[in-house]
Amino acid sequence: MFPIFIVFEGVDGSGKTTQLHLLHKYLTEKNLPTYRTREPGGTPVGEKIRELLLDPTFSEMQERTEALLYAAARAQLVAQVIRPRLEQGYTVLCDRYIDSTLAYQGYGRGMDINFLASINKLGTGGLQPQLTILLDLSPEEGLARSRKERPADRLEKESLAFYQRVRQGYLELAKKNPQAYLVLDARLPLEDLHRKICATVGGMVGA
Amino acid sequence: MFPIFIVFEGVDGSGKTTQLHLLHKYLTEKNLPTYRTREPGGTPVGEKIRELLLDPTFSEMQERTEALLYAAARAQLVAQVIRPRLEQGYTVLCDRYIDSTLAYQGYGRGMDINFLASINKLGTGGLQPQLTILLDLSPEEGLARSRKERPADRLEKESLAFYQRVRQGYLELAKKNPQAYLVLDARLPLEDLHRKICATVGGMVGA
Repeated sequence: MFPIFIVFEGVDGSGKTTQLHLLHKYLTEKNLPTYRTREPGGTPVGEKIRELLLDPTFSEMQERTEALLYAAARAQLVAQVIRPRLEQGYTVLCDRYIDSTLAYQGYGRGMDINFLASINKLGTGGLQPQLTILLDLSPEEGLARSRKERPADRLEKESLAFYQRVRQGYLELAKKNPQAYLVLDARLPLEDLHRKICATVGGMVGA
Repeated sequence: MFPIFIVFEGVDGSGKTTQLHLLHKYLTEKNLPTYRTREPGGTPVGEKIRELLLDPTFSEMQERTEALLYAAARAQLVAQVIRPRLEQGYTVLCDRYIDSTLAYQGYGRGMDINFLASINKLGTGGLQPQLTILLDLSPEEGLARSRKERPADRLEKESLAFYQRVRQGYLELAKKNPQAYLVLDARLPLEDLHRKICATVGGMVGA
């Protein structure tokens, strides 16, 4: 058994949080120490930063400021939670990580990908997941699913074209480093997705 | 007349805020459009970040998180205030800037200077002051002066050795780029310092 860092990525509505929950349950039932966390947030400092990021009174917030705030929350999560848990032997499951920033702010909004990658590499001390599980979904389907559950938020109101760029960004990131990604069609039944995820992760953690 | 970006640096108690105020008054009386601001803060987003940085409940805040938060506040200040004011023709006077981070977190606390310089260069889009006025003071004198005015805060409680490193850091930064620094002995009388500052700045802005 070797503790690994696993990230779930995908657009809202792709089912990544559900799959993270199911994998956490599966590993825990196998008596593998498993810790789940989420971004942004996951620490008291991070939750405070999250509040600031979501506060609609700060509409004048600049793109670079926003990116640095995400990187700050992430740096805190890595130093306070993820690294210590990995060192204690936990498998860590994280809902979103650096790829979310690259996909949404970089590919989606057109910010400089090198800027985003640099500040995040610096902030996290270069910690990369051994596996990223990407639940791929078309923007049309993602928005439809996500709106069933709750009212559309600020990000969801942005255009379908934006979500198309985010999706393509995710797929490009996976393509650049295919051995570290498991790309799955999010339209598959929940149980099929779970089975595929368990097969890959089980092989890695020896479950 | 050419709008310039001027930064005041020095340890607490060095009199930099007083000198900034006097220079602001001097330039304004010469009818030169002049804008003063301070770090961290200077914008609503920045003030919120400042609150978070100074909040003692977040004692678990990691060094990298703190550095990224300072960089985020600075990025906001540059994009929302400093660049627009410079473009409008204002001379901008700022109380602390990137050198404070390099001197305190880098030289003082031993954080990686390249990390700090990189995130700040990225965050500000590379905006550097044309002139940095460094009020140089020994740590002993700085602490003594500063404590006369108000109770010692968290940073001031750190050791004299720390302040010695901060001072040396500032002097090294000035040495690396001497044509962009005016280094003054902060023990000089207030009026003498003001006269020297006006002589240098006056030549630059044509006052």
